[in-house]
Amino acid sequence: MPPLGLLHMRAWASLFNRLLRPSGVVCIREVHFHSQGQMSLQVSEAVLTSQLKPQHEKSNFIIKTPKGTRDLSPQQMVVREKILDLVIGCFKRHGAKRLDTPAFELKEMLTEKYGEDSGLIYDLKDQGGELLSLRYDLTVPFARYLAMNKVKKMKRYHVGKVWRRESPTIVQGRYREFCQCDFDIAGQFDPMIPDAECLKIMCEILSGLQLGDFLIKVNDRRILDGMLAVCGVPESKFHAICSSIDKLDKISWNDVRHEMVARKGLAPEVADRIGDYIQCHGGVSLVEEMFQDSILSQNKQAIEGLGDLKLLFEYLTLFGIAEKISFDLSLARGLDYYTGVIYEAVLLQTPAQAEESLNVGSVAAGGRYDGLVGMFDPKGHKVPCVGFSIGVERIFAIVEQRMKTSGQKIRTTETQVFVATPQKNFLHERLKLISELWDAGIKAELLYKNNPKLLTQLHYCEHMGIPLAVIIGEQELKEGVIKLRSVASREEVAIKRENLVAEIQKRLSES
Amino acid sequence: MPPLGLLHMRAWASLFNRLLRPSGVVCIREVHFHSQGQMSLQVSEAVLTSQLKPQHEKSNFIIKTPKGTRDLSPQQMVVREKILDLVIGCFKRHGAKRLDTPAFELKEMLTEKYGEDSGLIYDLKDQGGELLSLRYDLTVPFARYLAMNKVKKMKRYHVGKVWRRESPTIVQGRYREFCQCDFDIAGQFDPMIPDAECLKIMCEILSGLQLGDFLIKVNDRRILDGMLAVCGVPESKFHAICSSIDKLDKISWNDVRHEMVARKGLAPEVADRIGDYIQCHGGVSLVEEMFQDSILSQNKQAIEGLGDLKLLFEYLTLFGIAEKISFDLSLARGLDYYTGVIYEAVLLQTPAQAEESLNVGSVAAGGRYDGLVGMFDPKGHKVPCVGFSIGVERIFAIVEQRMKTSGQKIRTTETQVFVATPQKNFLHERLKLISELWDAGIKAELLYKNNPKLLTQLHYCEHMGIPLAVIIGEQELKEGVIKLRSVASREEVAIKRENLVAEIQKRLSES
Repeated sequence: MPPLGLLHMRAWASLFNRLLRPSGVVCIREVHFHSQGQMSLQVSEAVLTSQLKPQHEKSNFIIKTPKGTRDLSPQQMVVREKILDLVIGCFKRHGAKRLDTPAFELKEMLTEKYGEDSGLIYDLKDQGGELLSLRYDLTVPFARYLAMNKVKKMKRYHVGKVWRRESPTIVQGRYREFCQCDFDIAGQFDPMIPDAECLKIMCEILSGLQLGDFLIKVNDRRILDGMLAVCGVPESKFHAICSSIDKLDKISWNDVRHEMVARKGLAPEVADRIGDYIQCHGGVSLVEEMFQDSILSQNKQAIEGLGDLKLLFEYLTLFGIAEKISFDLSLARGLDYYTGVIYEAVLLQTPAQAEESLNVGSVAAGGRYDGLVGMFDPKGHKVPCVGFSIGVERIFAIVEQRMKTSGQKIRTTETQVFVATPQKNFLHERLKLISELWDAGIKAELLYKNNPKLLTQLHYCEHMGIPLAVIIGEQELKEGVIKLRSVASREEVAIKRENLVAEIQKRLSES
Repeated sequence: MPPLGLLHMRAWASLFNRLLRPSGVVCIREVHFHSQGQMSLQVSEAVLTSQLKPQHEKSNFIIKTPKGTRDLSPQQMVVREKILDLVIGCFKRHGAKRLDTPAFELKEMLTEKYGEDSGLIYDLKDQGGELLSLRYDLTVPFARYLAMNKVKKMKRYHVGKVWRRESPTIVQGRYREFCQCDFDIAGQFDPMIPDAECLKIMCEILSGLQLGDFLIKVNDRRILDGMLAVCGVPESKFHAICSSIDKLDKISWNDVRHEMVARKGLAPEVADRIGDYIQCHGGVSLVEEMFQDSILSQNKQAIEGLGDLKLLFEYLTLFGIAEKISFDLSLARGLDYYTGVIYEAVLLQTPAQAEESLNVGSVAAGGRYDGLVGMFDPKGHKVPCVGFSIGVERIFAIVEQRMKTSGQKIRTTETQVFVATPQKNFLHERLKLISELWDAGIKAELLYKNNPKLLTQLHYCEHMGIPLAVIIGEQELKEGVIKLRSVASREEVAIKRENLVAEIQKRLSES
């Protein structure tokens, strides 16, 4: 076996161990070659025998969800649906279409899109066939969709789960599985009109959710790059320095400066020049000021970015949201694919005392990425895109916390009418009655018991917040009536059976 | 190596191939043992060298979604949302709460739940940490949730994706990623009341979706087992024979009989006895008939099952759906975990000619599984459950096909008003105007161009099915009015600017 024999024995052992790892066997110590294509492996007997044991031996395992994930209870689902309805309602108000993509993509679709974060991608096991990964965000699948279907223009939203193998710090609301709501506008248009609409939508959603005061920081990748260039940062270090700047909302400028100088090799005076710029934030007047900046204005890229920001502020003023937007030179979004304006929405106050423990940080962010679609296109055809993603998990956490604090009770069902009886052996009548209600579109429940006690049935209504109860007994059956009870007031009236549905619908429409 | 040496050489080769399969290497032909714990493998050189090539070589890759998966276009999403709204509306009408669980579970949670189908589970790559698998259905995660949270009683629904590594025969609407809608009732109740409600809900949904006539086949695991026992099938072959019976809707009785005799070793007269039973189907009268069957009535299990079915039919009659239900002794659902009544809904007619190519088979199925929760509970505490799953993908396919055939145009946006101008340099006025509409909750769009042509704008409205257009030009600005245009009739009226929102809302509420 000449070509194989070229490998050193230890290399062979290592190769076999690598191949065997998916099956859990990593036990080969030595490999020897014999004549006639034979090969011998020095194996560890103990490990191999353990493989032969039936895997069905169920040790006392712990029932849990995977690390960093969780079930969502009916209470949580009610809060989520309310929030998502508002978010989706806003996307639809702006004419967006809905899209859905598979939970996993070909692994190669996700490579070289996320920079340092690529290590957080979940891969699927190679079970024969394609190499797959769970999606990491909804932006890359959107770009893949556009390139694959040669779509040149699209306004779409996407609500779905994404997965990241982050070290979960669950207290801060970070999970390995979480929901994102994305809105993006793809297509070649006149400058900054779609960008301004994205910011308008973010404002509408954050106002609508009543999360308290908020601010959207805006910057531009070209201004950032231009600023680094004029400060004297070599281009090769742009990414590393950006990721240091990105930490400014978590650590102080002194610590960021130290990182830049000590760990990333920047000259102290270069770091100080950056420091002067990135402490600047303000409205459109700061854009004007930067235009006048004798150093920055020498950079062509920066001037382009500033020109676009000026136009953006013009449109934001027409939309009546300019005072919510802050041009902030310290904003440096981490993802590789941004090419122009970038933005990030932050809540300015924790709305109530009990929520102070919630470190929510940014609740929505996005920007312009004109090159991503081209990365998928065989001929590199570009489709300019701008959009944003709402970190709804953080918003869910705030709203849940607020409800807990206020002691507000959340109904997890929508049942309108409960079918009860004071009598024994009345199951058949109850079933006939509830069937009539269901067929009339009324949300109704009964207890799955042949002979439940009346008190148990009425308690159930009160406990579940069901507004109405209909009560049927022998007397009512004889008279052709049903008792309709308001659960809250405990008032009861007799209603002719044939008028019951109409009366219930009337009561429900009034409440 | 005495314990290992006990295995035959060929068994060793087979074991190694099995272990190596996940890495794609299945090339070991012979294994020989040597002294001192050495072992030699006869390998295929070609296959091993192919493993050594770097996998990072990105050839000119094809942009696609993973095998068996697909993107859902805005058109498809509209159809889906309509169907899901109806399904969820029905679940809510019956008092169900919504639950959500992670897309993946600990691998061990899914083992021994799906019988032969376990091989279709997607595993995640071991990237350090827990061994995970994508969920295969929504039933097992529900049972895990109940056991984990010690919930003894719950009526819940769950709409979500599940993943199965099936060989995709996409023509028949089978995908590796697909959506399921599950409804289940957990808890100890009086017999057959929740079971009857499940069948009622299935009927409501299938009627509501207007898919044409349908039938729900019902059987009981205990009747099935009892029938096999009295026919002379040894208990060890129950599973194998059930899976043969399960094929009756795809292949003829003769072929099933042949499989039972030739492949599964049943005596021909035993197979014939089974054949006599499983051709029986009918209403409640068949239940009575089986009670009288001198042979079947000797089996205690079968009598229990028949007693429950009799009660079930009583309740179904009260619900007015008995004629939709057929007691069918050939129904034998494949999954391991069913313990009592089982059912499956089938469409009786392909609703239109063009849909004949769609082989939809069953569109909903379920049953009682009283032991599944106990499999997760350390002490084996049982929580009886009954429920069903709607195969919504098949329903989506039918409705999509029907819409295609009818040539019905689907609006993928909900935009109500388009903001247009006949004038150049009117972007600022358009932006101010659309902002007013958005803030009033009106769904509105404009073109992202500084100077679009009026004709282009009006064409866009017609193309997208937007009912109203508001037109602003210099004349209107001067007079403080806006032109409101009905896109369909092309009628235009001038409206005072301050009355515009009210007038639009009036028009929209009328249509």
